[in-house]
Amino acid sequence: MTPEQLAEIEELRATPTPTLRAVAPGMERHLHTAHEVLDHGMIRVVDYMGDDAAICQAARVSYGRGTKAVSNDEGLIRYLMRHWHSTPFEMCEVKLHVKLPVFVARQWIRHRTANVNEYSARYSILDREFYIPAPEHLAAQSEVNNQGRGEALAGEEAARVLRWLRDDANRAYDHYEAMISQEGQQGLARELARMNLPANVYTQWYWKVDLHNLFHFLRLRADPHAQMEIRVYAEALCEIVRDWVPAAYAAFEDYRLGGASLSARGVDCVRRMLAGEEVTQETSGMSKGEWREFMGVVR
Amino acid sequence: MTPEQLAEIEELRATPTPTLRAVAPGMERHLHTAHEVLDHGMIRVVDYMGDDAAICQAARVSYGRGTKAVSNDEGLIRYLMRHWHSTPFEMCEVKLHVKLPVFVARQWIRHRTANVNEYSARYSILDREFYIPAPEHLAAQSEVNNQGRGEALAGEEAARVLRWLRDDANRAYDHYEAMISQEGQQGLARELARMNLPANVYTQWYWKVDLHNLFHFLRLRADPHAQMEIRVYAEALCEIVRDWVPAAYAAFEDYRLGGASLSARGVDCVRRMLAGEEVTQETSGMSKGEWREFMGVVR
Amino acid sequence: MTPEQLAEIEELRATPTPTLRAVAPGMERHLHTAHEVLDHGMIRVVDYMGDDAAICQAARVSYGRGTKAVSNDEGLIRYLMRHWHSTPFEMCEVKLHVKLPVFVARQWIRHRTANVNEYSARYSILDREFYIPAPEHLAAQSEVNNQGRGEALAGEEAARVLRWLRDDANRAYDHYEAMISQEGQQGLARELARMNLPANVYTQWYWKVDLHNLFHFLRLRADPHAQMEIRVYAEALCEIVRDWVPAAYAAFEDYRLGGASLSARGVDCVRRMLAGEEVTQETSGMSKGEWREFMGVVR
Amino acid sequence: MTPEQLAEIEELRATPTPTLRAVAPGMERHLHTAHEVLDHGMIRVVDYMGDDAAICQAARVSYGRGTKAVSNDEGLIRYLMRHWHSTPFEMCEVKLHVKLPVFVARQWIRHRTANVNEYSARYSILDREFYIPAPEHLAAQSEVNNQGRGEALAGEEAARVLRWLRDDANRAYDHYEAMISQEGQQGLARELARMNLPANVYTQWYWKVDLHNLFHFLRLRADPHAQMEIRVYAEALCEIVRDWVPAAYAAFEDYRLGGASLSARGVDCVRRMLAGEEVTQETSGMSKGEWREFMGVVR
Repeated sequence: MTPEQLAEIEELRATPTPTLRAVAPGMERHLHTAHEVLDHGMIRVVDYMGDDAAICQAARVSYGRGTKAVSNDEGLIRYLMRHWHSTPFEMCEVKLHVKLPVFVARQWIRHRTANVNEYSARYSILDREFYIPAPEHLAAQSEVNNQGRGEALAGEEAARVLRWLRDDANRAYDHYEAMISQEGQQGLARELARMNLPANVYTQWYWKVDLHNLFHFLRLRADPHAQMEIRVYAEALCEIVRDWVPAAYAAFEDYRLGGASLSARGVDCVRRMLAGEEVTQETSGMSKGEWREFMGVVR
Repeated sequence: MTPEQLAEIEELRATPTPTLRAVAPGMERHLHTAHEVLDHGMIRVVDYMGDDAAICQAARVSYGRGTKAVSNDEGLIRYLMRHWHSTPFEMCEVKLHVKLPVFVARQWIRHRTANVNEYSARYSILDREFYIPAPEHLAAQSEVNNQGRGEALAGEEAARVLRWLRDDANRAYDHYEAMISQEGQQGLARELARMNLPANVYTQWYWKVDLHNLFHFLRLRADPHAQMEIRVYAEALCEIVRDWVPAAYAAFEDYRLGGASLSARGVDCVRRMLAGEEVTQETSGMSKGEWREFMGVVR
Repeated sequence: MTPEQLAEIEELRATPTPTLRAVAPGMERHLHTAHEVLDHGMIRVVDYMGDDAAICQAARVSYGRGTKAVSNDEGLIRYLMRHWHSTPFEMCEVKLHVKLPVFVARQWIRHRTANVNEYSARYSILDREFYIPAPEHLAAQSEVNNQGRGEALAGEEAARVLRWLRDDANRAYDHYEAMISQEGQQGLARELARMNLPANVYTQWYWKVDLHNLFHFLRLRADPHAQMEIRVYAEALCEIVRDWVPAAYAAFEDYRLGGASLSARGVDCVRRMLAGEEVTQETSGMSKGEWREFMGVVR
Repeated sequence: MTPEQLAEIEELRATPTPTLRAVAPGMERHLHTAHEVLDHGMIRVVDYMGDDAAICQAARVSYGRGTKAVSNDEGLIRYLMRHWHSTPFEMCEVKLHVKLPVFVARQWIRHRTANVNEYSARYSILDREFYIPAPEHLAAQSEVNNQGRGEALAGEEAARVLRWLRDDANRAYDHYEAMISQEGQQGLARELARMNLPANVYTQWYWKVDLHNLFHFLRLRADPHAQMEIRVYAEALCEIVRDWVPAAYAAFEDYRLGGASLSARGVDCVRRMLAGEEVTQETSGMSKGEWREFMGVVR
């Protein structure tokens, strides 16, 4: 962050204005402040709409009397989450400023139900900022799983990888700068020069999303199987959402993050096991992969 | 509005809370207050996010230096609207409470990029409230246009229509009430009884939408060809949006509401006419319908 | 169906044309033929794109080598469904012609990620066709559940309900017809006259959706808690989808229709129960409602 | 294309199967065949649904009698396009296999209403294929426009740029390969190693979209202001769409590609000019930029 940016945040945080809208005290604390992620990335809450009460307000419009039976907001929110009601959670919205490596941005953007304004390298010049993994995150390819990571690389192999990542990024950026320079030459169009930059260069965007779709994002990206470099953004977001809508986040944690899905076969196996039967993969009707995942749930 | 509802609005409007978010003063004036539409309908702003500055902030993240050439926010917003940029306008969001007849709701819901929580007649009992057109809006079928309206009906015909609309709605509601009653009988399920109610019964919902999609809605529904009963909602919304984001609304009015689209043939005709040629429908290459519409633009 | 419509279907089914696209033999059998639903409703497959192999083809582009480990298409499809992969299922698409009561259409349309062209009562005149429940479906309001149904009504109460539904619908239609008539009078605009018609009048539309979103629709609407009048459409669709993409439908049936979700508390309880502990609602950490639902899964 | 791929296409094209669905003869010619774009890119039609008649069929369901006035399909399609009707065009769908540089993919993916399965470099190894512009496309930064291109670079400057692009890409790929190699070392995880590759590396995906959203894509990306490297894909697609739905494409060309939008001020100026007034930028009420664009339309 430059001193100008810090001063701007300082100023934004120093000037509260009265509003007649719902205010979420836990979220006001986060507003404008940058949360650091990875080596040069960050998440910053720029604006938000709604709170736990807004979720209940919308649900009560829909279900009217039906929601009176549930004694309180927390119980209602748990009921909505348990039964996969989505529209009341869509009534909350958040707008973030995110700085992230391009290869993370390419995964992130696949979540289509969101609004995005990304920094354009057609118009503007990218900064010399690249993600270089910390040594403990320089993981080897998993031997069991095509998409996973194994142990961290060690010794000379790790050093060589870091050297290549740094040198290639810097050389690519040197040439990027030299190509667009207009000193003593015409200068290549920015929209072309950017193609020389690697996928660990940082970009930034404004990302606006409703709470239902944010929960969907968090469920997939805060999952242990998500790539670590996007998971750390999801984890930072989890902490922010917990402060914003505590009841909704608690329900999300219980029913989604910490929950599990059983197939019809899985339900059948649980019943048989509870009835005392010794069920094995062979008698379960499941494939080996399914059985391993099922055992991970019930054991 | 019941006295309880008025008291609730009074209270909501009496308790401003400090926030660090962007505040749109023109929109704060509308918050919570019900704007009456049709005989029993209304629009009420429940929450909003962003203002004119938020549109520019997002555009400047995207286009960086590219936006510096434009001297001020108003000019930038006009540029964005003229060139069909949509994402910066998506950075503003509004949440409304709307009460509207079911046949209007059925048109409205076709705008898919929005969040909705509607009052559910499966769970709850609908009120005895029906839209009955004012006599001057009791229009005859247009003779030129399959979808349009002609003059207002007159005399006995008008009186008969009004009588039928009122009597049929009331009888349907009497039977609805009698069918669901649990006094001295089992009582029909609400989810079934509702099928007896006509399309002019009022429903209500929370509707949340971003500014880009709201403009799209307004462009289609504030259009003179839209059915009057939805157009009055769109017109009430136009006034609200004008107060919320004055620069964006002015650009919308100039480029969308008041603007016109020319086809390649239309552009060609304008050029030929400006060059002094006498162009007729026959020499224009347009069909009669197209030519009539084209003449409506340029004359 | 009119004789003209039957003749048209006959003709469409009699003229196969060669194509280089993927053909799903099980779906060709359904093409154009109307499947009757409720008393006057129907579902008709108008077009489709893709088959089980198209799902695998798309997944293999994404995961490349990663998918080779899975020996066959069926296994791959089960893997994708189990791990909530959505995009490969989006590669199949179906277009339906559906005739359905308006109150069913109002639930159906809430599924936003679909394409719809509905018969317009602004332009055209609706037919005199209303849904009147069969006596065994004339259910009482549930006493335990605000949204549910109890036993069928009996005797005089049932007869009275049926009489009201029939008489009110017919009277409303008589007046609708009389209002729009242009014989000896101006005739009310169609867009106004339609407001007199009750929610059990039939409408029709073309509905086009991808397989992922169709599964989501079926999961919610083929559920026992869905209103019977939409569930019968979902059930008819299930049979069609089973013939279209047999492997994907089998996986959907196992993991979604027949499966169950456990919360973190639920997972914990299953583990404790399998370890021999006697878990009760009090020691489960769940509310009474949650516990009842959990018991419904594991017992 | 490898010999295996060519053989596969050959086989797919050699085995027509009868179907009862609508068949678009002009599209059957394109099916499976790869259209080359840029130096290593391509577009290949994998599947499609619907034709010009399907658009009319859907519109006639919606507007019923209203569409009878229009004598033929071509006239109806022109009417729908002129009046911005979108849903009938959504009834057609196309699925493409596209190979394209990552920096083009990043623009393309911003069109959210589409289905995508992209080759995953988390799971699989990317090929050594990079986009290197042809010398005549090695454009300088525009001096008037932050986002535009000027003349092609010449002489030594051009040679240097090409050398850097080639050398940096190859070195990055050499290191990518060396980092993931498992010979004599652990081998870096693929999901990490990919970050070293520049934005001109080729990726590929299946992209499925409806005709309405495809037209929106083409309108923005076949525009002269679009970056050349995505415009060539849009132009190749235009030729394919022209063969698929000739009437819809002709209407699109007339009303969108070749048409123009006038603001309220623009409409006013045209009227004044046709009435013989000498209008200048000063008397137009427009900014300089707007006036320049307006003059580009009418002159």
